[in-house]
Amino acid sequence: MGDRLPSWVPGATRTAVEQFLDRAVDVPVEQRVACFDNDGTLWCERPTYPQFDFFVDVLTTAVGKDPALAREPEFAALISHDQVAIGELGLERIALALAGLCNGLAPEEFTALVRDFMSRAMHPTLDRPLRANTYQPMLELLLALRDLDFTLAVVTGGGTEFVRALSQDLYAVPPERVVGTLIEYDYSDAAGRPALTRTARLVGGANEGSVKVSNIQTQLGRRPILAAGNSGGDRQMLEWAATGAGPTLALLVDHDDDQREFRYVSSAETFAESEPITDVARREGWTVVSMAKDWSTVFAG
Amino acid sequence: MGDRLPSWVPGATRTAVEQFLDRAVDVPVEQRVACFDNDGTLWCERPTYPQFDFFVDVLTTAVGKDPALAREPEFAALISHDQVAIGELGLERIALALAGLCNGLAPEEFTALVRDFMSRAMHPTLDRPLRANTYQPMLELLLALRDLDFTLAVVTGGGTEFVRALSQDLYAVPPERVVGTLIEYDYSDAAGRPALTRTARLVGGANEGSVKVSNIQTQLGRRPILAAGNSGGDRQMLEWAATGAGPTLALLVDHDDDQREFRYVSSAETFAESEPITDVARREGWTVVSMAKDWSTVFAG
Repeated sequence: MGDRLPSWVPGATRTAVEQFLDRAVDVPVEQRVACFDNDGTLWCERPTYPQFDFFVDVLTTAVGKDPALAREPEFAALISHDQVAIGELGLERIALALAGLCNGLAPEEFTALVRDFMSRAMHPTLDRPLRANTYQPMLELLLALRDLDFTLAVVTGGGTEFVRALSQDLYAVPPERVVGTLIEYDYSDAAGRPALTRTARLVGGANEGSVKVSNIQTQLGRRPILAAGNSGGDRQMLEWAATGAGPTLALLVDHDDDQREFRYVSSAETFAESEPITDVARREGWTVVSMAKDWSTVFAG
Repeated sequence: MGDRLPSWVPGATRTAVEQFLDRAVDVPVEQRVACFDNDGTLWCERPTYPQFDFFVDVLTTAVGKDPALAREPEFAALISHDQVAIGELGLERIALALAGLCNGLAPEEFTALVRDFMSRAMHPTLDRPLRANTYQPMLELLLALRDLDFTLAVVTGGGTEFVRALSQDLYAVPPERVVGTLIEYDYSDAAGRPALTRTARLVGGANEGSVKVSNIQTQLGRRPILAAGNSGGDRQMLEWAATGAGPTLALLVDHDDDQREFRYVSSAETFAESEPITDVARREGWTVVSMAKDWSTVFAG
């Protein structure tokens, strides 16, 4: 067998991953399920989420057609980069307002918008196309798991339909194995021709924390033996994988590389937690991946 | 190529299915999605749904342990086969009461119960194990579609977790490709050990009618080019497939075989509709499968 993980530096982390892969061959195939968070785990989420950049791009186009939109408080704050106003409005309200720009679109129209954006968007600081900001070592791990007949799923706090538009190309993960934050559709049926159109209403809540665990069960129907994440929003999913039977792997990506990517002040900073997720990981005995030390290459592109 | 559909009698129906298969090779693989209703489409649903038989079996065991349960009105009606009381209570209330017997079970405990039941349950009149009551011609169609790299899904009004416990064995369809009526889980987390337990609360409503279309989008993320069903509850799903672009196939199973299976008074009788679903099918130009005339063999077992 060739080197399955060429971008993983020899050491304790790589050994832990390889030992899990070696032990997984004894697990029944139907139990070989691996769940990966997306933002910050499979691809770069700084300085802003790619999905956020996408919606701002949609906003720019929409304001070009209808300048009055720029007076909506959520959009005005974004357009003028008014961080105080953005902070006062809150990211959730702004995200819902942005998502509302896609109200009424058919699913395939939304998918086409996402793919068009991703075909041309550049990362704001890393001088690289946004679509090339996936992590090469994680792509190698996905491939190694696929070679072992794992069922791979992306379990993201981001929009299910946004990630689905990209998951096959980026990760070879088909749409039904993307579990994320879902929007509702309106159904209509004129003269026997059903149609679905997007709304900005969420089905359930955001796919973070314990919701990830419940949604893995309701949407995938199986408990993962591997989970990978990078933030407090992944904690319960990592616990769910780590406390199952048989060989398990809970993998936490620590963003400690300010040369090649970003050094997070705390990996928990995105989600309020009583303690940093890296401390939780070390106490629980999870495998912590130092981007600076454990990865010889960071980006795939 | 050998005969892909040996149990389909030569004629217009078989030709329509074969023509669809031949044309599907020109469809991009990611659009090759086929959705099958389960009860009455992939396996026998008469005289009672297998899932209903399962819950009655659970009830029998539960009453053995706690005879007081037999005094609950829903259960008393079932145990005494009191059709009047059953009619007055309504099947939905009875179904929820039965589902409530599994409250508090972990997902894998519920799966084990279903598999145990299905390993021993006999059909009440057809002298055959319940698990062998799948339709041989439909299994041949699933296989022919799989050979063409179709993504196959079961889209059922039944319980998602009930069908998932069986779908891999019966149809080679993995759990994440079963879209059905979902129950909610309670999540708990004692000392970093997450646990999920069943409730009798539904997530959304029953997976019938237009809900099937919405749930196909939210859970599978792709529009089918083939849909198969047998009742008014499948109408919108069949319309959704039939009115898409490119080659499509809407297949309606007509239960007209009282010798080998059951002759339904009307295929619409399970769901109140203004007109029988077979009439809708003929008007819409769907492919209607006569079990009596188009299938040389009915059952797989």
